[in-house]
Amino acid sequence: MNPRQLAHEAIERCRQLACYTEEAGRLTRTFLSPPMREVHQALAGWMLELGMTVRIDAVGNLIGHYPGQTPDAPLFLMGSHVDTVRDAGPYDGPLGVMLALALVKGLEGQRLPFALEVIAFSEEEGVRYGVPFLGSKAVAGRFEAGFLKLQDAEGQTVEAAIRAFGLEPTQIPQAAYNPAQVKGYLEFHIEQGPVLEAQGYPLGIVEAIVGQSRLEVAFRGQAGHAGTTPMPLRRDALAGAAEWMTLVEREARAEPGLVATVGMIAALPGAANVIPGEVQMSLDVRHAYDEVRSLAVANLITRAQQVAQRRGLELFYQTRYEQPAVPCDPPLNERLAQALEAEGYPVHHLVSGAGHDAMIMASLCPSTMLFLRSPGGLSHHPEESVWPEDVEAAVRVGLAFLRKMADGPF
Amino acid sequence: MNPRQLAHEAIERCRQLACYTEEAGRLTRTFLSPPMREVHQALAGWMLELGMTVRIDAVGNLIGHYPGQTPDAPLFLMGSHVDTVRDAGPYDGPLGVMLALALVKGLEGQRLPFALEVIAFSEEEGVRYGVPFLGSKAVAGRFEAGFLKLQDAEGQTVEAAIRAFGLEPTQIPQAAYNPAQVKGYLEFHIEQGPVLEAQGYPLGIVEAIVGQSRLEVAFRGQAGHAGTTPMPLRRDALAGAAEWMTLVEREARAEPGLVATVGMIAALPGAANVIPGEVQMSLDVRHAYDEVRSLAVANLITRAQQVAQRRGLELFYQTRYEQPAVPCDPPLNERLAQALEAEGYPVHHLVSGAGHDAMIMASLCPSTMLFLRSPGGLSHHPEESVWPEDVEAAVRVGLAFLRKMADGPF
Repeated sequence: MNPRQLAHEAIERCRQLACYTEEAGRLTRTFLSPPMREVHQALAGWMLELGMTVRIDAVGNLIGHYPGQTPDAPLFLMGSHVDTVRDAGPYDGPLGVMLALALVKGLEGQRLPFALEVIAFSEEEGVRYGVPFLGSKAVAGRFEAGFLKLQDAEGQTVEAAIRAFGLEPTQIPQAAYNPAQVKGYLEFHIEQGPVLEAQGYPLGIVEAIVGQSRLEVAFRGQAGHAGTTPMPLRRDALAGAAEWMTLVEREARAEPGLVATVGMIAALPGAANVIPGEVQMSLDVRHAYDEVRSLAVANLITRAQQVAQRRGLELFYQTRYEQPAVPCDPPLNERLAQALEAEGYPVHHLVSGAGHDAMIMASLCPSTMLFLRSPGGLSHHPEESVWPEDVEAAVRVGLAFLRKMADGPF
Repeated sequence: MNPRQLAHEAIERCRQLACYTEEAGRLTRTFLSPPMREVHQALAGWMLELGMTVRIDAVGNLIGHYPGQTPDAPLFLMGSHVDTVRDAGPYDGPLGVMLALALVKGLEGQRLPFALEVIAFSEEEGVRYGVPFLGSKAVAGRFEAGFLKLQDAEGQTVEAAIRAFGLEPTQIPQAAYNPAQVKGYLEFHIEQGPVLEAQGYPLGIVEAIVGQSRLEVAFRGQAGHAGTTPMPLRRDALAGAAEWMTLVEREARAEPGLVATVGMIAALPGAANVIPGEVQMSLDVRHAYDEVRSLAVANLITRAQQVAQRRGLELFYQTRYEQPAVPCDPPLNERLAQALEAEGYPVHHLVSGAGHDAMIMASLCPSTMLFLRSPGGLSHHPEESVWPEDVEAAVRVGLAFLRKMADGPF
């Protein structure tokens, strides 16, 4: 099979996996849900055809092992997740697993100085339990005991879900790899954003996964009658919020690589004829450098304080979530760049604005990602797609990368 | 009884009426709800004590008649509404009825060249059926046949509610006064706003009830991932909405007497990590001059179009409600000004930013309002209040007004 055929098969298999869903008519497949069994059956079949051995760890990660030249060869890992968001597209996650299998197939039985393991992570999106990366955290030895007690919407715990799937939660510690045996991790993933498309690149090497701050911000003023309260006597929380949101956008535009988003807003009491007395908002700030992000958050809070003071409003804010930036491994990225050049593709680096399993795997071993262009920048949407020629490019570059890795030094 | 005692009694009676409620622990009294019977009993008792005759018309307005010097004397009307919003205060509406009765009591049996009728309107707030002014519209001959088919939250029609209360809906046309017999209408009401308090006036003569435009405005852009979509590639509907809301506030501040309010806002899909693809807002614009209001609305739509065009957003807007401004009667206001001066109070004019029964009554006869200062500007709130000395001022000014009216020309 040539790279074009391997790419075609990877796409076909993503579409096949998209049929295994909890909800008729749309793709939703959460952690250890019933359709995950069908995914496991399909994956295991494809892996066995490639001469791989297959196992499922205690959090439901399915792992295929392709031996190296010697029984004690180190491991190189590839993979992505096979859970999805609600009403998902077929490629976010599964494409990374299908491409890893395409590379194994492309080796045509050739053994490398390292064994390959392809991991289909059971959980990355955080849909069922509100906590993401359950799969990669187990593999990286970062699965916290408290996770077992989390409950889903129906009150079933992670522990019970694992048992119901036929797995044994007390075995989770054994899912962790020994860092000394693992040489690296590579994840293929759709970009989930518009950057590669806008700049005309099929593939992009991920330099870092951005750090993220998520805050709740609220202005409190004075509710009042929209007719009887003259403008100069108002303490309108929404007018203050609007002014601040324009500053959020302005500051983010002024700092290269910074993104800042107000995605949720609620104005109370929320009647057409009542001046809002309180406005609650979310603020999401991301950047590849933690210092830049921290400074931006501090600046935006200062701006909010200034707006509040000038308008006689009270300001409330609380940091709900902080995730440091994770740099990808420069030596692995150097090999990816060489592989891109060798196959005649432009070398382009970018940062990932979203979290990925690679972010967790980076605490286990040198890790990186290769992004495929997302047509229309669509993400978490049933119409998300890939260009077949971009998938073919990923196959070619992936195979060249493995050959360069095999050339050592390893 | 002197004016201070009359004021004290009016306040006490408002508090008594506030006990007649549909909801334990808070005041909610909608159109023809069970507690309205208790209100009617109390009102009828107080009116009969004053030698008035009492009747209830077919929409549940309770009307007391105090005869003039001759049987064919014309009518002068006073009153306000006795329904309330949910979780209301005691004064919004009932105070106007209690002050009218205080004036009748203050006449101490003296007959005037006109008969007085005190109307307790059954419906002004629009809570139960979503349509306000059912009471005054019947009195003004503007009750529309379609109102009878309106349904409340439990599916009961206005028609059924009227019958259930023991009244006869086919008699509604007879509730309308003959304009030739009515010389005027005066309504006392709390200001429901902060203007009189801010400027230090106990009372204010209402020059006009503002006109009102209510619109729905929406921006539609492109939802996207808050992490993976760089600022320059966004079409963020909320960022556009924020910019426009700052312009709404700026334009309203620049035009004396204009108020513009965004009271409702919804951002879709409404997740912290998703750029809003659509934002829906309410816009409420009011001014005493219809031309100023219409121009302001047109300007704000133009601003929204400019924001949308510059940002690649779509703009949607729809006018939901248009209410022309209603000027109050200048001769009645001249008498009110004379009465204020005669009693030693400052003469201050203002506009009403809220609708009132007087707005409807103005289509029947010369109408005006006298506002009492609202402490803290509180309105539609259980803690809304009045200063006793302001109520006393209203009694003194009201009696002086009636004497001046009696002096003619009438």
